Amino acid sequence: MARISAASDKDGDLTRLGAAIRARRKSLMLSQEALADAAQIDRAHMGKIERGERNVTFLNVVRIAKALSCKPSEIAIDAGM
Amino acid sequence: MARISAASDKDGDLTRLGAAIRARRKSLMLSQEALADAAQIDRAHMGKIERGERNVTFLNVVRIAKALSCKPSEIAIDAGM
Repeated sequence: MARISAASDKDGDLTRLGAAIRARRKSLMLSQEALADAAQIDRAHMGKIERGERNVTFLNVVRIAKALSCKPSEIAIDAGM
Repeated sequence: MARISAASDKDGDLTRLGAAIRARRKSLMLSQEALADAAQIDRAHMGKIERGERNVTFLNVVRIAKALSCKPSEIAIDAGM
């Protein structure tokens, strides 16, 4: 999994993406652990994705979107991207 | 960079994403090399991304979108995702 420093995400893109994922998860009343399990992503990694601390891969965005019953494009739009 | 086998992309998500990137690049009359340079992505890696042979990171999708003067969400929508 790609590790990034805050400097790599200087525009805050990962922070915004993670916040959009978190907001959709909460709107579905899902715990972070439940989302991680549904998306088949390691729980600790999911926490880092939501905090914008990891440069998530596209296939993991696809998995997360499926687990949130939405599309990757909808998460990106939520994130203003 | 994340290496993926064809099996990991069994739903063809990376193939569709790569095709959407290629179509936008061609509509702008950009060479693959010019896009890679504009996005600051290694040229060989860009070819693999367009062919769906690499699990591209979200920050690289952001860079590619910027180089194509569009948003990550627009590329995802083009890809049907």
